[in-house]
Amino acid sequence: MPISLGELATRFGCELIGNPDSAVSNVASLPNANAESLTFLASDAYKEQLSSTKAAAVVLRPADAGDSPVAALLHDDPYACYARMVAVICPPPSYAPGVHSSAVVDNSATVAASAHLAPHVVVGERSTIGENVYLGPGTVVGPDCVIGDDCRFIANVTLPRAVTIGERGIFHPGAVLGADGFGNAMTAEGWVKLPQLGGLRIGDDVEIGANTTVDCGAIDDTVIDNGVRIDNLCHIGHNVHIGAHTAMAGMSGIAGSTTVGKRCMFAGMGGAVGHITICDDVIVGAKSYVSKDVTEPGTYLASFPAEPAKGWMKQVGRFRRIAALQERVRKLEKK
Amino acid sequence: MPISLGELATRFGCELIGNPDSAVSNVASLPNANAESLTFLASDAYKEQLSSTKAAAVVLRPADAGDSPVAALLHDDPYACYARMVAVICPPPSYAPGVHSSAVVDNSATVAASAHLAPHVVVGERSTIGENVYLGPGTVVGPDCVIGDDCRFIANVTLPRAVTIGERGIFHPGAVLGADGFGNAMTAEGWVKLPQLGGLRIGDDVEIGANTTVDCGAIDDTVIDNGVRIDNLCHIGHNVHIGAHTAMAGMSGIAGSTTVGKRCMFAGMGGAVGHITICDDVIVGAKSYVSKDVTEPGTYLASFPAEPAKGWMKQVGRFRRIAALQERVRKLEKK
Amino acid sequence: MPISLGELATRFGCELIGNPDSAVSNVASLPNANAESLTFLASDAYKEQLSSTKAAAVVLRPADAGDSPVAALLHDDPYACYARMVAVICPPPSYAPGVHSSAVVDNSATVAASAHLAPHVVVGERSTIGENVYLGPGTVVGPDCVIGDDCRFIANVTLPRAVTIGERGIFHPGAVLGADGFGNAMTAEGWVKLPQLGGLRIGDDVEIGANTTVDCGAIDDTVIDNGVRIDNLCHIGHNVHIGAHTAMAGMSGIAGSTTVGKRCMFAGMGGAVGHITICDDVIVGAKSYVSKDVTEPGTYLASFPAEPAKGWMKQVGRFRRIAALQERVRKLEKK
Repeated sequence: MPISLGELATRFGCELIGNPDSAVSNVASLPNANAESLTFLASDAYKEQLSSTKAAAVVLRPADAGDSPVAALLHDDPYACYARMVAVICPPPSYAPGVHSSAVVDNSATVAASAHLAPHVVVGERSTIGENVYLGPGTVVGPDCVIGDDCRFIANVTLPRAVTIGERGIFHPGAVLGADGFGNAMTAEGWVKLPQLGGLRIGDDVEIGANTTVDCGAIDDTVIDNGVRIDNLCHIGHNVHIGAHTAMAGMSGIAGSTTVGKRCMFAGMGGAVGHITICDDVIVGAKSYVSKDVTEPGTYLASFPAEPAKGWMKQVGRFRRIAALQERVRKLEKK
Repeated sequence: MPISLGELATRFGCELIGNPDSAVSNVASLPNANAESLTFLASDAYKEQLSSTKAAAVVLRPADAGDSPVAALLHDDPYACYARMVAVICPPPSYAPGVHSSAVVDNSATVAASAHLAPHVVVGERSTIGENVYLGPGTVVGPDCVIGDDCRFIANVTLPRAVTIGERGIFHPGAVLGADGFGNAMTAEGWVKLPQLGGLRIGDDVEIGANTTVDCGAIDDTVIDNGVRIDNLCHIGHNVHIGAHTAMAGMSGIAGSTTVGKRCMFAGMGGAVGHITICDDVIVGAKSYVSKDVTEPGTYLASFPAEPAKGWMKQVGRFRRIAALQERVRKLEKK
Repeated sequence: MPISLGELATRFGCELIGNPDSAVSNVASLPNANAESLTFLASDAYKEQLSSTKAAAVVLRPADAGDSPVAALLHDDPYACYARMVAVICPPPSYAPGVHSSAVVDNSATVAASAHLAPHVVVGERSTIGENVYLGPGTVVGPDCVIGDDCRFIANVTLPRAVTIGERGIFHPGAVLGADGFGNAMTAEGWVKLPQLGGLRIGDDVEIGANTTVDCGAIDDTVIDNGVRIDNLCHIGHNVHIGAHTAMAGMSGIAGSTTVGKRCMFAGMGGAVGHITICDDVIVGAKSYVSKDVTEPGTYLASFPAEPAKGWMKQVGRFRRIAALQERVRKLEKK
């Protein structure tokens, strides 16, 4: 919806260079912006696109103000400031309250009158759906779940049972929250399943990506704290505890019973083995996994970026011959 | 449901130290147990929690019996014994037979009268659903499938076509069983799809995790043998054969046409390339993949656990300079 | 459906050695073929199975013609030729036009009369479904989507919003096309979500595997070009551009804003970091990821295949002691 630059500046604490009565009604990247667009510059990598932008206004750092050919909204953190503005200019869709006739809600469940249940939704025994919750098409909320106010389940999300979620969560399609953990005991007759009886507790303002899985606990609960962000195709094992504001990029995974601190970040395909504790403010690099307790904040890494195959194969050969090299040095030392 | 310690001891072959008429009605971890809880101690790592437990009884090894402050059920394999007891104390939910009015069953399909079809289930042409099967909400069983007795599909599981499953299987939400394998032939005009015509055969007592995919065969079938356990977000390619009682942890994958033996174990993010054979009793470590036939049982590994990034980057630099080091040693040897 | 060898030869440009009036009605592997089967030999690895095949006819290279015990269809690329023949002998299922009574189609959507909408399908506001499209059970097409003619969505595919797809695409169960990308700005109060407003554009003849996720763009669109093939459980981040005829094997992933060229191939668990450009005709090996721009076609690799754990652990120890070895060589050089 259209909003004036003056109002944006006031509301989000920016200095405005330009006409406060100009309005923006959409957002766009620097090169694709039009005369009604808000855009932003947060990284020097895109600075060359600034001079030719056709935007109505750009959110940028005070130091870049002089380079803007159009109105400028100055903020020390232009990316976060822009993100907040976008949520106002292009708000998420709103849904009229109501339960679609094809949705199936158990008699023992409680659904707030302001909630919207889309086609083919299922809500199970004793579950509670909070105010303004959106359950998108095909979403299944099993028994004994509690969904806090203002949560949005985009479509085809599955909560098998016993999941408690705080407020304002966003859950993307195909996410499976609270399925059985992987608990099996080996015996002479094969694996015996350990029934998974714990639940899953998710805090406020959590976002979980498409086709990500978070298992319920074996006995006690799996816990995802406030403000956690998990990307697509991630896996969180049973009885994991993810600390507040930790973020995990796509295809990363945490094995069972591991505790991850606050504000940690996992790059794509990163992870951690089970039964360890990772302190706050740890960053785990791409395709790297942590194998033991981490007690010092910082960045942890153990992956090799790909290089031309012929060179890599030779390098692997040298790696395999380090022992021979050590032996040759030993002989030289003896002489 | 409540059960006496005496009955547990008799039924599961334990020695009981304590009152056989005491009963347990729930299970809990050592620290969270109450006066009606059964708990267990299987690992020395948790032994310090034993002395203060408030449980009604603990399942543990005979050697630990003296340390229990409460009634003890002694068993050589306390974890497996406890797992079996839990299945009795906290049995999985049971479902009244019947087909929900929103389920769509093809006229040519056969559904056992004892089966439970939840809302929005679909059963396709010529498929057969066995006795006591539970098809949870949104589950799609395509044409030409045969589902054995007592299988449970928690919710939103998809079997596109031609899947045959034995008895007592458990299939978690989002699992896709029998989708097309990845078969394409490169031509001058681009990829040509090889139609995937084989089926998928799954044995008895198999459990497959949330959002895991198992492809159908290209011509012959993909096969998962009895007792196999596959965790979440795993991928099994077309024409793979997984031997009985093999277990795969989260995010592991087996590429097409590979044969995996019995009782193998894949740790998280582990895997195998296509068109190889892995013998029985092979363990593949975390984030490691097998690239050729494995003929000897044992543990296979090739991953580096993450370490502080600065040290790792230096180490990668040294790795890249092994050739230079070899050259320096060569020069020294010449002297 | 039955087809004569003569017709196959004419239609697919093969030389036929054998009776043109013989017919095939199914396809099979060399060892499992019967007197009505077409089979093929494309790799020397399977040549020993040729002599005993019971097939009606074999598609193979001219050089192998003399070794066939049965009728032979000679083609320089027997695998691609066979793939095209299979599509004729065993065509994909066809579906009668129509919308199942349980499907929910928004009043503002347009569905071609020739399309088939299976049970529990949802089509959202302003979306368009083309001619002969198959939307399998549980498929959700959100608002503002355009689905080209002859696309097939097998079951439980989810398109949250704003996805445009060309013709003849095949989308497997659990695929999520166009969910929000992972865009978050860190602030003192935690992560702020960057609303994801871009769409997803998919070209013609694209196939996307089960439980794969392709995110919509943050502002501009994510783009998948014509003829791309993506296997199961892959992840394509927001604003990625995948060039025509690129193929990605299972569990591979491309992080946000990366551009991948034409005819690239990613092996299983391969990938690329975000914000880079990969030129045409690049192959990325198994479990390897590209971390910076690639400007030369060729194969890129950086993974170690698993080996017996004891040997690997020793090797890791030697790797960690390269610095010590360098120091020893330095000392020797000083002498």
